[in-house]
Amino acid sequence: MEAFDQYAGHTIAHMQKMLRNLDRWIERAIANAEARKYDAEVLVQARLAPDQYAFVRQVQSACDTAKFAAARLAGKDAPSHPDTETTIAQLRERIASVVGWLEGFGPSDFAHAGSAKLSLPWMRGKAMTGVDYLSQFAVPNFYFHLTTAYSILRHNGVDVGKMDYLGGISMQDP
Amino acid sequence: MEAFDQYAGHTIAHMQKMLRNLDRWIERAIANAEARKYDAEVLVQARLAPDQYAFVRQVQSACDTAKFAAARLAGKDAPSHPDTETTIAQLRERIASVVGWLEGFGPSDFAHAGSAKLSLPWMRGKAMTGVDYLSQFAVPNFYFHLTTAYSILRHNGVDVGKMDYLGGISMQDP
Repeated sequence: MEAFDQYAGHTIAHMQKMLRNLDRWIERAIANAEARKYDAEVLVQARLAPDQYAFVRQVQSACDTAKFAAARLAGKDAPSHPDTETTIAQLRERIASVVGWLEGFGPSDFAHAGSAKLSLPWMRGKAMTGVDYLSQFAVPNFYFHLTTAYSILRHNGVDVGKMDYLGGISMQDP
Repeated sequence: MEAFDQYAGHTIAHMQKMLRNLDRWIERAIANAEARKYDAEVLVQARLAPDQYAFVRQVQSACDTAKFAAARLAGKDAPSHPDTETTIAQLRERIASVVGWLEGFGPSDFAHAGSAKLSLPWMRGKAMTGVDYLSQFAVPNFYFHLTTAYSILRHNGVDVGKMDYLGGISMQDP
């Protein structure tokens, strides 16, 4: 499992980048609210179905999934975020806090991630390998909440598109 | 980059599993349509915003992202799917076709994926490493289209939830 640590570091760095993209979609939503003369704060409680998490909870969950993935794969404690955000400004602070914390991680932090066995309360006495945890749980969950947050904005007429979702991509000479 | 091939194989296998989950959400949509007495076929053209891909295109795109990720990382040709689906039944055939094709892949197919440099038309003369292509392009895109397909069904009242999204997770004794 020599290089899983590198790939884990790469994935955490990419989650950090996607959270920065999320902050840009929120900037776009604020501009959209100004242009269309509605209160951007209504988006905090917007959702696509009545029994689905609202935007606020999608953002909190995306932040948490990235934070806990980094912490658990690196064997570190995660900072506490008590989910008390009620405004757009507070959600942006939450994102900035997690993005800033993730900056402290590099591939060497994940040296034992490949051989790690993680046992979390929701696993009910079972455990997952670091590889399974990342590919089957953390990554699908992260993109689930991130894309749903994006879709809630999109559904409300915020002019975000696929390129805003992906953000810049690392290319090089062939 | 010894183990990237393993992780790539793992990720492709997981995409295959998520496509099987997608087929189950569609089954759930068909049951929902019967119970609520609407025509399930209207979901094919459902979307969350007027300038966004409809359900049909989200499903096609999720299938294509998984298919091309496997093909490009393994250096193989992908089968052709001309995007002619117009019915729920045809979309399920498309999913089954890609899921079946992905069954032929194992970690050994991705032995050179880590050191590969991929140059595709949309890269405009540039190239991406296999690692960047998977983590920055294929994975975010795959989950984007998959989650949007899920959200379109959810928005229309189909009773799918987070556990249906994730599907079964590989756990073991701690």
